[in-house]
Amino acid sequence: MKDFNIYVTAKAGIFDPAGAQAEGALHNLDLKMIEQVKIGKFIQLRCDDSTSLDNVRQACDKLLANPVIEDYRIEPVSED
Amino acid sequence: MKDFNIYVTAKAGIFDPAGAQAEGALHNLDLKMIEQVKIGKFIQLRCDDSTSLDNVRQACDKLLANPVIEDYRIEPVSED
Repeated sequence: MKDFNIYVTAKAGIFDPAGAQAEGALHNLDLKMIEQVKIGKFIQLRCDDSTSLDNVRQACDKLLANPVIEDYRIEPVSED
Repeated sequence: MKDFNIYVTAKAGIFDPAGAQAEGALHNLDLKMIEQVKIGKFIQLRCDDSTSLDNVRQACDKLLANPVIEDYRIEPVSED
């Protein structure tokens, strides 16, 4: 088994409505010290051993991320 | 400024509908080597210097995660 973690975040300059909403809500909860919230996706893949980084990139570009408004970072997970 | 990354994932045994959907869609895209997909949240916080780990835990428990069905991990980000 090969595992990969993927971190999907909004590109710089793209509005993140969920993050903005969370910011306001935290301030209402008296957690005003939290000044900025950005909410992205944390995706964990479990793949068979034949999987290449290129396969994972394809999965991101075609389905898991929206390359127009999101950046992603792929991190191979070492087995323990 | 103090930054924190938060990783929110479904607890073991909790069904992850978005992940299951993505799995099926990847198989239709001929990416069958990707056997399991779990979709969680990757949250980035920017906080003022007075912020404690306990404040961030409160934010997670009250708003950013649902402790009934989700686990979270907080990672302080070191400034470069």
